[in-house]
Amino acid sequence: MAKAKNLLAFATGLTLLLLVPSSSPADPYVYKTLYFDTLVDHFSFSSNATFKLRYFINDTYWSQKPNSPIFFYTGNEGPIETFAVNTGFMWEIAPDFKALIVFAEHRYYGKSMPFGDKSKEAGNLGYLSSSQVLMDYVELIAYLQSTSSHSNHPVIVFGGSYGGMLSAWMRIKYPATVTGAIASSAPIWYFTGMTPCEAFNRVLTNAFKIESPHCSNNIRRSWDAINDITNTDDGKAWLSSAWKLCSPLKKSDDVNKLKDYLNEVYANLAEVNYPYPSNFLAPLPGYPVKVFCKSLKKEELEGKKLLGALFNAVSVYFNYTGTAHCFNYSSAFTTIDDTMWNYQACSEMIMPMCSDGKTDMFEPRKWNLTDYAISCYQGYKVNIQPNLVKYLYGGKHISTASNIIFSNGLLDPWSSGGVLRNVSETAVAVIIPDSAHHLDLRASNPMDPVDVINARNFYRYTIHHWISQHHRLHL
Amino acid sequence: MAKAKNLLAFATGLTLLLLVPSSSPADPYVYKTLYFDTLVDHFSFSSNATFKLRYFINDTYWSQKPNSPIFFYTGNEGPIETFAVNTGFMWEIAPDFKALIVFAEHRYYGKSMPFGDKSKEAGNLGYLSSSQVLMDYVELIAYLQSTSSHSNHPVIVFGGSYGGMLSAWMRIKYPATVTGAIASSAPIWYFTGMTPCEAFNRVLTNAFKIESPHCSNNIRRSWDAINDITNTDDGKAWLSSAWKLCSPLKKSDDVNKLKDYLNEVYANLAEVNYPYPSNFLAPLPGYPVKVFCKSLKKEELEGKKLLGALFNAVSVYFNYTGTAHCFNYSSAFTTIDDTMWNYQACSEMIMPMCSDGKTDMFEPRKWNLTDYAISCYQGYKVNIQPNLVKYLYGGKHISTASNIIFSNGLLDPWSSGGVLRNVSETAVAVIIPDSAHHLDLRASNPMDPVDVINARNFYRYTIHHWISQHHRLHL
Repeated sequence: MAKAKNLLAFATGLTLLLLVPSSSPADPYVYKTLYFDTLVDHFSFSSNATFKLRYFINDTYWSQKPNSPIFFYTGNEGPIETFAVNTGFMWEIAPDFKALIVFAEHRYYGKSMPFGDKSKEAGNLGYLSSSQVLMDYVELIAYLQSTSSHSNHPVIVFGGSYGGMLSAWMRIKYPATVTGAIASSAPIWYFTGMTPCEAFNRVLTNAFKIESPHCSNNIRRSWDAINDITNTDDGKAWLSSAWKLCSPLKKSDDVNKLKDYLNEVYANLAEVNYPYPSNFLAPLPGYPVKVFCKSLKKEELEGKKLLGALFNAVSVYFNYTGTAHCFNYSSAFTTIDDTMWNYQACSEMIMPMCSDGKTDMFEPRKWNLTDYAISCYQGYKVNIQPNLVKYLYGGKHISTASNIIFSNGLLDPWSSGGVLRNVSETAVAVIIPDSAHHLDLRASNPMDPVDVINARNFYRYTIHHWISQHHRLHL
Repeated sequence: MAKAKNLLAFATGLTLLLLVPSSSPADPYVYKTLYFDTLVDHFSFSSNATFKLRYFINDTYWSQKPNSPIFFYTGNEGPIETFAVNTGFMWEIAPDFKALIVFAEHRYYGKSMPFGDKSKEAGNLGYLSSSQVLMDYVELIAYLQSTSSHSNHPVIVFGGSYGGMLSAWMRIKYPATVTGAIASSAPIWYFTGMTPCEAFNRVLTNAFKIESPHCSNNIRRSWDAINDITNTDDGKAWLSSAWKLCSPLKKSDDVNKLKDYLNEVYANLAEVNYPYPSNFLAPLPGYPVKVFCKSLKKEELEGKKLLGALFNAVSVYFNYTGTAHCFNYSSAFTTIDDTMWNYQACSEMIMPMCSDGKTDMFEPRKWNLTDYAISCYQGYKVNIQPNLVKYLYGGKHISTASNIIFSNGLLDPWSSGGVLRNVSETAVAVIIPDSAHHLDLRASNPMDPVDVINARNFYRYTIHHWISQHHRLHL
């Protein structure tokens, strides 16, 4: 299921990218782990069942004075540790604002399981929806407010990628709870009828093309080269040997797996195209797309020469340290259980993906909603609701939104579904040409491009402004 | 359960008040009856079950041009016929706007039963929540848009009382679906922590006091008079006879019933205190509070003289036509099944009611949330969620709301929980001194006070303005 693969890349791109803490000077991140009892179902009264939502909290800098804010990370699809240690921006500015720092875990991830060990069983997954998550956070914030003598602190929500979508939606749906939102790399418009399905792959292609048109052209040409050579058993054997595949190519399904892997690698490289080395399953150099393209940028290649150069390029991803004995293409994410995000992608988060092989560097693949619906039903017995996000959050008609910063890096393929223009006077777009996926939320680094530094300064200024308005607007 | 009685008055005050069509010249109201398949649960994916939501539609005036609006009544707690024939304002202005007229029925009322005949069973009531209702309407509107070649018509929602709350909340939560809302007599602030519990009874008392302070004072004094005389069996017999009670007073519980009945009558009289005769279970004269007060306004009475005068007054309510053989106080609403509204009042619509006998004309009754919660749990096995409405819709912090008219009549006790000041530039309050409960939404009548006429003109002007902005704001 090509689309699920792409969606998986989205999910894991967010989660795994962050597994290893950055080497920011603000380390270590210190927090208490707490749990909050919240309803499994906030929107009906059929059951009073509750579960424990995990959250991390640090009140070192907090002053319980009226203007002292709550900085609240709207956790996304992964264990909350990941986000706590990789959203350095929140930690760095908290002292200046005397802010309470909170990282809330998304239900059905990490240790926040509505049905305990049985949360993944098909019948129990139904309460995994963005609406329920937002209410978890609304109730948690109300509780946190109640622990202060002041009880009406400004609340600033932060989130990256799907977490950024949740941040923006929090402010859109619950403006009485949330004063403002920093929604980084949040593709809230990557849904049916809002963004053409080929947009992601087009922007992804550009991330390679700006290194060199030869690089993206060589990737585009590589699919035929792979298909041609693997057409025969001899060719399969050659490629298996030349690429040092851990598991040799035997049947056409193996070839498809290899190509799926490559597709994911390209998306991941673009998402983590950070200026400094970072860890993502395997360690990566700074600007990994540039390093990747090194062997593909001189000229347009073909046949075995092309495949040889591509192998060198891909080695950056799976073998940057030179310690891999073979190339394991079976899955880029073998350690990840993607049940939860795939369920979301099959119910509410329907993000259409396709490619045409012309404006992008991928094999042509159409988006077929019917086929997608069928495989989702087969997998989860769930009906896709491709319009639900539009109905709930307004789609492109969000001119009433306020106090949101939508930031997008133009190196990030997800910027294709992001908000790249101001939608109202105070719901504004920040475009960061030299940034990949939510680089702006990470801890500052000497290698940060100047436009990321400027963006963060703008966020600080804007947050101050929101806080100064908070009490005037809240009666 | 005193509070439930008050809530019941609220519910039936909306519903029953409108049972008999007005004698407006715009009669008859002609519509097609249609049904729309909608999900029982919009916020989780546990079940794909749907049910048929009933709605009425009239497209006589509709032009499928971009600026031709959809006028959508957000049905409240009763069969939708009631609202269709008693919201004459929508019908009267529809030709001018070339509007599509739609009246949508609230789930669990009329013929819109999520579980058919079994919808009232305790286990099936859980999906009776405002969140679910709003999404029913959002999806119905999306469907109606899809039936037009234009598909992006401005949508104006209308509602009175709880229906007005739904209208305001529709615009607040779904501004991409709804262009503007006329929320008449909508007590969106009659919830915990927003309005003091005695406010309703204080304003209700004022409606009688402005006829004559003697009138409200005599009502206040009557409780002791009733208590005193019914303290003995002889007294009970005397009152049963003097008041021609259908069922004589035997025990103290009967006396409580009689007093509950009186409480409800006073609230109902104030709500339907219209300038012209209207029908409400029994026919009522124009300005029924004035007529009621006639025998109580001359002087402050006591004992049997007071009770005799009160009987004459109450006769306006139960025997205006003079055809009642006896005074049936067992319930003012015996024909009404109040299971559904009482369930709402026990889950989400927790509206605190109390009286102090000083600023109001009622026997002192405290509001006790704990007792209320216990009786709700005993009745429905449901936990009250007194903060849910605040979390969902922002409580008093709605400065981000836009394009809403909150209208309130100062003769209406529910104005105590209404929005009586502008909350933003375009979410504005309209105060109608001479109006009772949502008189403004009724068909025009020669007896209408000039401030109601002015209010309706303002609505027309504002709706035109909203429509002219619609396409500019919707990209």
